Amino acid sequence: MQRYFVPSENWRDNRVLITGEDAKHILKVMRMQDGDHIICSDNNGRTSLCEIVELDGNVVEVQVVKDVETETEMPVFVTIAQGLPKGDKLEYIVQKGTELGAVSFFPYTAERSVVKWDEKKALKKQDRLEKIAKEAAEQSHRSRVPEILKPGSFSDLLKMAEQYNIKIVAFEEEAKQHESSRFASVLKTAAKGDSILCVIGPEGGISQKEAISLSERGFVLCGLGPRILRTETAPLYMLSAISYHFELKG
Amino acid sequence: MQRYFVPSENWRDNRVLITGEDAKHILKVMRMQDGDHIICSDNNGRTSLCEIVELDGNVVEVQVVKDVETETEMPVFVTIAQGLPKGDKLEYIVQKGTELGAVSFFPYTAERSVVKWDEKKALKKQDRLEKIAKEAAEQSHRSRVPEILKPGSFSDLLKMAEQYNIKIVAFEEEAKQHESSRFASVLKTAAKGDSILCVIGPEGGISQKEAISLSERGFVLCGLGPRILRTETAPLYMLSAISYHFELKG
Repeated sequence: MQRYFVPSENWRDNRVLITGEDAKHILKVMRMQDGDHIICSDNNGRTSLCEIVELDGNVVEVQVVKDVETETEMPVFVTIAQGLPKGDKLEYIVQKGTELGAVSFFPYTAERSVVKWDEKKALKKQDRLEKIAKEAAEQSHRSRVPEILKPGSFSDLLKMAEQYNIKIVAFEEEAKQHESSRFASVLKTAAKGDSILCVIGPEGGISQKEAISLSERGFVLCGLGPRILRTETAPLYMLSAISYHFELKG
Repeated sequence: MQRYFVPSENWRDNRVLITGEDAKHILKVMRMQDGDHIICSDNNGRTSLCEIVELDGNVVEVQVVKDVETETEMPVFVTIAQGLPKGDKLEYIVQKGTELGAVSFFPYTAERSVVKWDEKKALKKQDRLEKIAKEAAEQSHRSRVPEILKPGSFSDLLKMAEQYNIKIVAFEEEAKQHESSRFASVLKTAAKGDSILCVIGPEGGISQKEAISLSERGFVLCGLGPRILRTETAPLYMLSAISYHFELKG
């Protein structure tokens, strides 16, 4: 069934008002009618089966039929801090990372980032990534849309890192030296509700200098297996492994 | 350092003859000279640091300086059987799946596959996918290039499955019912050297009918966490989790 995130201020007495892009999608793309059903989430933990009760040119009103229980969020809160990669890789990371359960993404300019974003470009990119995250969250049945944090610098990354319980860096040099125990060891120390910050470098990885400042601030430098992963593959590996570790207990 | 797979028949007395595309790449793209170094793998377990000793118009000859030990292959042999997806998703699955350690890929026509490949198209696609696998294997420092198996039908899949120790299907219905223990339980039964067949459906997943014939043949139907993954994300999740399980011991 079609799913839409509707801001909680649009929910009143089990009536939900859908406007903008989503209303257009319901009316023009899905061509839905009175009595059709959709799933609405308020991006705040509430997800409900709803019936369309009114449509006009650009607004759709639905009535909650029943709240549906969803447990689709990870038991830990994972933020992906991604060194700015080339091309459209970041869009891909946000789409797949949303399916895989990340709660937020922080694009930062790393020493080896080739692309640079000025204020204007950063805002435009942020809007685009927010749209991708919303669509991926709807498709993957998430009950919250991951946040796209304002892109920043490496020192912004160091500042924000202070709020996290657990801090991990994907570090290729460790992988090459067959370091293979730290990632799993760190995950074993994590508890339900912990916040985990995963830092990934751009193409070429993080620099030695960056690795040193991160480890000085309590980050654990981890290899992700013996194969060299591309910058856009590393976050998916980390999120899949974290999901496997916390959500798929044997 | 640049890496190339060179068929073992081109290796003689620590001399390696590089021809075709790779020679072009060394000469025209990398613009290498006598004395430059590259890494060559014979796709048969041998990987060597080599020095360029001769170049002519379209052939490069290199001398082995020393063999380098590599342990970049998974301790288990994972084959990804992928229901034909739309667009270029399969290329993406082969590229990422190669980075993540799969040893072979089997594209099959599933009940819900929208695209159909005739003999001619299948051959063309297979060539293209082999090229992608070779490049991804070089980039990720694999010591073998994953095999692209001849695309086939669902009954071909059932036939080939007989050779595998462990057979797993990603089944969305199980995920929706929060089935969360089987995937990890099955991996716990696997030993070093086992062959694991992972079956993924196309968009829309595998059908109930397919699920039944697979489980009748000893496949384990597994959920991959509570979120609904796209067809191209499921194999990456499975490979990442298998790598985490077998290669990253905490």
